[in-house]
Amino acid sequence: MSNNCAVILAGGKGKRMKSELPKPLFEVLGEPMLEWVIKACKNAALNDLCIVKGYNAHYIDEYLCGRYETVLQEEQKGTGHAVMQARKFLEEHLDSNTLILYGDAPFVDEATISAALEKHLSEGNAVTIVSARLENPFGYGRVIREENGISCIVEEKDATEEQKKIDEANSGIYWFKTSALLEALDEISPNNAQGEYYLTDTVGIIISKGLRAGAYLTPNPKVALGANDKKGLLQLNNVARMDIIEKHMENGVEFLCTDGVTIGRDVIIGAGTKILQGTIITGKTIISENCTIGPNCLIDDCIIGFNTKLNYVQAYQSVIGDNVKIGPFVHIRPDSNIKSGVKIGDFVEVKNSNIGEGTAIAHLTYVGDSDVGRNVNFGCGVVTVNYDGAKKSRTTIGDNAFIGCNTNLVAPVTVGEAAYTAAGSTITKDVPANALAIERGEMKIKEGYGLRKLKGRIKKD
Amino acid sequence: MSNNCAVILAGGKGKRMKSELPKPLFEVLGEPMLEWVIKACKNAALNDLCIVKGYNAHYIDEYLCGRYETVLQEEQKGTGHAVMQARKFLEEHLDSNTLILYGDAPFVDEATISAALEKHLSEGNAVTIVSARLENPFGYGRVIREENGISCIVEEKDATEEQKKIDEANSGIYWFKTSALLEALDEISPNNAQGEYYLTDTVGIIISKGLRAGAYLTPNPKVALGANDKKGLLQLNNVARMDIIEKHMENGVEFLCTDGVTIGRDVIIGAGTKILQGTIITGKTIISENCTIGPNCLIDDCIIGFNTKLNYVQAYQSVIGDNVKIGPFVHIRPDSNIKSGVKIGDFVEVKNSNIGEGTAIAHLTYVGDSDVGRNVNFGCGVVTVNYDGAKKSRTTIGDNAFIGCNTNLVAPVTVGEAAYTAAGSTITKDVPANALAIERGEMKIKEGYGLRKLKGRIKKD
Amino acid sequence: MSNNCAVILAGGKGKRMKSELPKPLFEVLGEPMLEWVIKACKNAALNDLCIVKGYNAHYIDEYLCGRYETVLQEEQKGTGHAVMQARKFLEEHLDSNTLILYGDAPFVDEATISAALEKHLSEGNAVTIVSARLENPFGYGRVIREENGISCIVEEKDATEEQKKIDEANSGIYWFKTSALLEALDEISPNNAQGEYYLTDTVGIIISKGLRAGAYLTPNPKVALGANDKKGLLQLNNVARMDIIEKHMENGVEFLCTDGVTIGRDVIIGAGTKILQGTIITGKTIISENCTIGPNCLIDDCIIGFNTKLNYVQAYQSVIGDNVKIGPFVHIRPDSNIKSGVKIGDFVEVKNSNIGEGTAIAHLTYVGDSDVGRNVNFGCGVVTVNYDGAKKSRTTIGDNAFIGCNTNLVAPVTVGEAAYTAAGSTITKDVPANALAIERGEMKIKEGYGLRKLKGRIKKD
Repeated sequence: MSNNCAVILAGGKGKRMKSELPKPLFEVLGEPMLEWVIKACKNAALNDLCIVKGYNAHYIDEYLCGRYETVLQEEQKGTGHAVMQARKFLEEHLDSNTLILYGDAPFVDEATISAALEKHLSEGNAVTIVSARLENPFGYGRVIREENGISCIVEEKDATEEQKKIDEANSGIYWFKTSALLEALDEISPNNAQGEYYLTDTVGIIISKGLRAGAYLTPNPKVALGANDKKGLLQLNNVARMDIIEKHMENGVEFLCTDGVTIGRDVIIGAGTKILQGTIITGKTIISENCTIGPNCLIDDCIIGFNTKLNYVQAYQSVIGDNVKIGPFVHIRPDSNIKSGVKIGDFVEVKNSNIGEGTAIAHLTYVGDSDVGRNVNFGCGVVTVNYDGAKKSRTTIGDNAFIGCNTNLVAPVTVGEAAYTAAGSTITKDVPANALAIERGEMKIKEGYGLRKLKGRIKKD
Repeated sequence: MSNNCAVILAGGKGKRMKSELPKPLFEVLGEPMLEWVIKACKNAALNDLCIVKGYNAHYIDEYLCGRYETVLQEEQKGTGHAVMQARKFLEEHLDSNTLILYGDAPFVDEATISAALEKHLSEGNAVTIVSARLENPFGYGRVIREENGISCIVEEKDATEEQKKIDEANSGIYWFKTSALLEALDEISPNNAQGEYYLTDTVGIIISKGLRAGAYLTPNPKVALGANDKKGLLQLNNVARMDIIEKHMENGVEFLCTDGVTIGRDVIIGAGTKILQGTIITGKTIISENCTIGPNCLIDDCIIGFNTKLNYVQAYQSVIGDNVKIGPFVHIRPDSNIKSGVKIGDFVEVKNSNIGEGTAIAHLTYVGDSDVGRNVNFGCGVVTVNYDGAKKSRTTIGDNAFIGCNTNLVAPVTVGEAAYTAAGSTITKDVPANALAIERGEMKIKEGYGLRKLKGRIKKD
Repeated sequence: MSNNCAVILAGGKGKRMKSELPKPLFEVLGEPMLEWVIKACKNAALNDLCIVKGYNAHYIDEYLCGRYETVLQEEQKGTGHAVMQARKFLEEHLDSNTLILYGDAPFVDEATISAALEKHLSEGNAVTIVSARLENPFGYGRVIREENGISCIVEEKDATEEQKKIDEANSGIYWFKTSALLEALDEISPNNAQGEYYLTDTVGIIISKGLRAGAYLTPNPKVALGANDKKGLLQLNNVARMDIIEKHMENGVEFLCTDGVTIGRDVIIGAGTKILQGTIITGKTIISENCTIGPNCLIDDCIIGFNTKLNYVQAYQSVIGDNVKIGPFVHIRPDSNIKSGVKIGDFVEVKNSNIGEGTAIAHLTYVGDSDVGRNVNFGCGVVTVNYDGAKKSRTTIGDNAFIGCNTNLVAPVTVGEAAYTAAGSTITKDVPANALAIERGEMKIKEGYGLRKLKGRIKKD
């Protein structure tokens, strides 16, 4: 049974999405719905996946980059027809079981997949439907149970008034004995005007053969949620947003106002950390305990230490240490490593640089492609001139150096330990340790100039 | 019938608004409620408008700037009295029909106005009330229908228990035969302690004359919404915000989180564009397809091309091309024209400038009153010195130029094609094409200075 | 009766908060819940407070800094046991009345405390419970009333089906005759498995002695709200946020979208001021009438005049005058005094400075430790060089001065009235009034340099 497999139906167009994109590629919390489904399968130890693509299939190919087997459903002839395209894949898994699920129902979870399989096996079912109790089951197929499993799935349009009151709905997720599925697929026929083959029909066929059909009622009714339009997509995003925020609250993370807060599903946050309004955290970001992040931060793929405070900061693919204070209005670009105790003030960009412990970069400064020591003090308006139009070069600054305001450090250049640069200097050569470097003309005074100018200003007003 | 007309009642004070401003001037999505009503009339091809002003009428005059005829209701003596002030205007439209509506009920729509008129005419009514079915009609007049139109409007205080259950309410919008209105106005009398004349009383008078009164039930119950206080105003804003966001979702625009998102009613957005949280878009902004706008952008009266990404950008009255990437923390001021493929990084201001295709302005730079060519590269900290205290001058930069970090370009000045300026230079004269301009002193080293200073710093700590 | 007193129970751990912090120190709108309770007591003229600390009591001590008497409950043995620890304090108030309340139920208000006391006294009660009608009283003790006051409090687990329907719940706030409380405390016994003493049991004991027990039904059911986990804490914050926003709307403040808006409880805002989305206002901030604050401002402990507009501004402990316009992307640090009519543009930091009337600081500038006169014009990129690595010094700029772009003002330095500094100059000596100061080398041209470089750039691409 180790090679149970899954077929993910990802051929849908999503006409009301008004987009070229196949529906499973629309994103919930920044990740395509298809990826949510793939991850749930992998978490449930299903590694043999076959993805059925259809509408604008090249987008699916581009997204998957060959990671999984795919088959093409050339015509949109129903869910049963979609599964038929995977016949070769299914035949390779003839002795095991196959999970069928939709690539645009992102909230399927590992626990549901595993528990449904367990039931499927222990009851010896040929097919096991995953069902969910829905507050409003309108539009869903209803599960008709009988003593010996289920007797059928009744679609909304075929349901009696009594059946419409049943709130146990078909989620569209199935475990099949692969062999039973293949046989049943051969027997379904297009019984509607559009000539479509419905996967649901296999259930009746299987039961009519005297095989057992069961239903696993999942405690997670969200497995049934999908989106047909941008409004539905927004709802999925909101559900996911609040679920993740609640999970973090259970872990001791503090939210004072969740407006505008979005946290990706792979983000890890320590207890006692506060996340303020408008903050977006994505990727594989890890934030340690007792930090304050926000308001209005955007943090992607960063690792952040303890007791660090970020206020109106955008940070990407960087490492930030403990007791760091950054903001407001700061941009940390990729490949920066900001050590503990650093203070970064307002209107500062750091890019691809190492900033040593206790260093201060107070305002209006750009530190790019630089290796900065400990306890360095940057004045206001410092620029590391890292690009000469042809190549990029690095700047090196030793411990305890003091970089004067509006200094240009023309890379490649080294400022030695405890060296100074005078305000307004353009530094084109290395500065020895402990030295002062100064590049400056003589200041001259022209008396009366301002007065003449002022008369012009007053006249103008 | 081409000169049907409308009288808009805009004399109300809105005491609980706690403001000097007449109530119709309070804004919903940045536009006075009065303007919403005027636009609905104009969209319904009603161009002859008369606005009845009253409380602090000069604010109405200032706002309208003479665009429409106004009359003054000097005393606040009821809605009937308000309409009486427009007698002269009505007499000029004696042979046509008059729409009466409130200047502080912003959600009246063109379709309602037109459909009500059609019913008014086809039924030969002397008056046609616009009614709406309300979930909670408490406080509204109820429409009492009979075979031959309506028999009366019953106010809340006069309604029987049975009548209070009627959920069809008077929206306060009426179409009158102008002649019937004028006659009825002569007959209403102040029947309450405050001596107020009620417009609603005209309906009974008209019916008592044997003329026909009808009601048009609008499918848009929001026409009846108004605000009596700041809380009500917030609710109107929220209703309008979400209505507009839904409209854009139907058009294929994507919203991942609508918190803090406000979009003006005249904004146009292409399918596939994503609007992120905290984004405000106002005026006549047009955004093309497949852009990403946000988080926290503020865009006013801009035209934005395809596939452009704005992150924490404020942009006003400017044109931004295709495949442009701007942000975070950028301010685009009016009259800027940013061509396709431009990249603007962090802490950059652009004002009244043309930026050529493919040009890059990475950080901490001000480009004002400038004409910049293609593929220009700005270093960090560049300033166009456009103001000498008396007059503003332009800076011109040719294609492929390279402006060194912390360069001052003292306008008027031209940097030729493919010219360079050295970091830290103040450029006061034109730079020929292909040349390098440099203004710099000699860099000097003073050994040991830093060490002495460091001892001072350590002592101080 | 002037020395009525209060005992605040603040020993709880809040296990599900997942924190070291005692539960009463978790914050609602930036203030510990304990402080909310203390303020309500003080507003009700109760100055003799005794705070019972328990779990990680040193945090309570650190927070209170000796402001109030505290006692330590070493073991967590129930609410009755907690009050017993205050025996000495109670004995000092034997002839008066004692209010008992929880340090983690922040919404108790002065009016409830005072009205409950009045009822307590006028009815001659030995104990008066504060009760509240709750929509969902599940989990709360129910108040069983009888002709002569109340007969008992029934806990959820002991309640009959009939009693469970009672929606009048015990808020956990009590007024006791101190003497009756002390006697009753002696008689309660631990009647549960954990050996805990319950304060509620004193009510039955008091009634059994033939003394009168009453209940004051507060019109503010929020007094009963507390939080057991971070989710509950978020709810308290949301309740408080919206309550405060509504209060400001009643005062005529305008909110167009409240998403992300948080206003501290001590903030004062004038009528006609608009607060836009994402704005956080804290501390003792006072904002005058007809301002526009936001979007995304963060204002702490500031005083702001009339008609001032702040757009994406962070301002701390400063004074800002009338008709000031600041933003976007500006940081006003503590001890700044910005006079009326000042304009501050983008990417500007002001710190510990006085900025005179009508002065303009348009972009990318740092003004720190400075005294700036009236109508001064700052070019772009100006830096006040206030720190030499050892000490901070002040910069003084006279009225009508004009500071050129990218000027360094090396403090201590004075720029006289109507003086000019040339762009790119580093000013190290005082500039006389009306003079021009210039520090600049000679600009040189090297022909052909750019062309050679460009070839390199093209080759590289």
